[in-house]
Amino acid sequence: MSDAKIRLYVDQPLGQGQPVPLTQDQAHYLFGVMRLGPGAGVLVFNGRDGEWRADVAEVGKRGGTLVCAAQTAPLRLPPDLWLMFAPIKKARTDFIVEKAAEMGAARILPVQTRFTNSERIRQDRLQAHAVEAAEQCGGTFVPEVADLVPLDRLLDRWPADRRIMWCDETLLGARAGLLEGAGQGPARGFEEEPKRPSPGPWAILIGPEGGFAEAEQERLRRMPQVVPVSLGPRILRADTAAVAALALWQSVLGDWV
Amino acid sequence: MSDAKIRLYVDQPLGQGQPVPLTQDQAHYLFGVMRLGPGAGVLVFNGRDGEWRADVAEVGKRGGTLVCAAQTAPLRLPPDLWLMFAPIKKARTDFIVEKAAEMGAARILPVQTRFTNSERIRQDRLQAHAVEAAEQCGGTFVPEVADLVPLDRLLDRWPADRRIMWCDETLLGARAGLLEGAGQGPARGFEEEPKRPSPGPWAILIGPEGGFAEAEQERLRRMPQVVPVSLGPRILRADTAAVAALALWQSVLGDWV
Repeated sequence: MSDAKIRLYVDQPLGQGQPVPLTQDQAHYLFGVMRLGPGAGVLVFNGRDGEWRADVAEVGKRGGTLVCAAQTAPLRLPPDLWLMFAPIKKARTDFIVEKAAEMGAARILPVQTRFTNSERIRQDRLQAHAVEAAEQCGGTFVPEVADLVPLDRLLDRWPADRRIMWCDETLLGARAGLLEGAGQGPARGFEEEPKRPSPGPWAILIGPEGGFAEAEQERLRRMPQVVPVSLGPRILRADTAAVAALALWQSVLGDWV
Repeated sequence: MSDAKIRLYVDQPLGQGQPVPLTQDQAHYLFGVMRLGPGAGVLVFNGRDGEWRADVAEVGKRGGTLVCAAQTAPLRLPPDLWLMFAPIKKARTDFIVEKAAEMGAARILPVQTRFTNSERIRQDRLQAHAVEAAEQCGGTFVPEVADLVPLDRLLDRWPADRRIMWCDETLLGARAGLLEGAGQGPARGFEEEPKRPSPGPWAILIGPEGGFAEAEQERLRRMPQVVPVSLGPRILRADTAAVAALALWQSVLGDWV
């Protein structure tokens, strides 16, 4: 019954007739905040079994149970695209994670660069933002938010087959005119990539506010996996650049195609 | 002198030797907050005369004067692209304006649709966000933020030559699969538009949270200027959709090309 507008991410396996026990927080949200009663419908997903309509079977103050009634959508995985970015101010970092989940990144990797201010991140809080974004955007998948890792260490063991779309704000701000003059518009390199069915593994790398250090730039330029991409003639904030880069990638190589 | 990292939007005309009187707020920022003294350099722009290095000539508590020393960048106008969106919650509306300025929209039009919650906006506050974004992103142009206007009234007198890239979240969420199945990926229509030198006048239209009303959708579908565009299989929040749509447009038709 009901038109089941609420979407809830759960940990449990989902399947026909499968009971889904609720945590205290989930019970509080469904019964305390949203005032659902027995029989009310909710949409649930766990990132593995697609989306299911589940009905409230048991209402409790500290818990409760849903029971899966019918699958409403299959699991839909995003393309194999990672987003690497240098954490910035709290609100804008939260925003990047939210947007990356909405835009269909498969994995989110906060990276520490020479010019990154943050020493640590609240991985659990960022993961919760990714869950909330998936609940909102109708996704059936939740990207994993990794712990903060130094960019250098990540590049040390970088997979040979995973390309990197490198968006360096400093580079872009300074070189956009030049690139344009040379007829090297944005995404020139990566538009020549094979199109569907699979673009293969990719990652987007967004720089920190101060741009990348000279040594980092040189290292990236030497890596055969790296494709430098211009995001236009204006200097974008890191959070803007993240969404813009994801849009560019998805529209050229990803699941917008 | 100095490397003039501060960028300031001013109203006054700029030119060689031109004195620029400061408002109380500007003086407070430059002398109180940033602690600049006589001779210090600032970058100024007014949206008309490009960017100039100006030196502090006079320091006051309630004012002061800069004098233009040299032009550091010519005026660079964005493409003739408007962004129309239905205002949402305060923080996300602020965000859309900031991002639109960064991404190079020429004009920002908050519109009232049937499903828009807002009855009014703080135009002055939003305009200030656009100014701040231009200061940050190195732009020499500040998009005008218009007052809230009903979408219907705007469409009543819509210019025959201005195309509308229409991003309807409801439509997209529901039809993305269909469109894909029919081989109608995003931006199909508008990739066939003439490329450089000028894409002509365009506008992007982003829907409100509840999508467009049936009557609005029908009206838009009947307009020859309208090009419906899909932003992928996930439902995007309005603020995400705004940045994504701007990135798509700029990379296909705009000044990222």
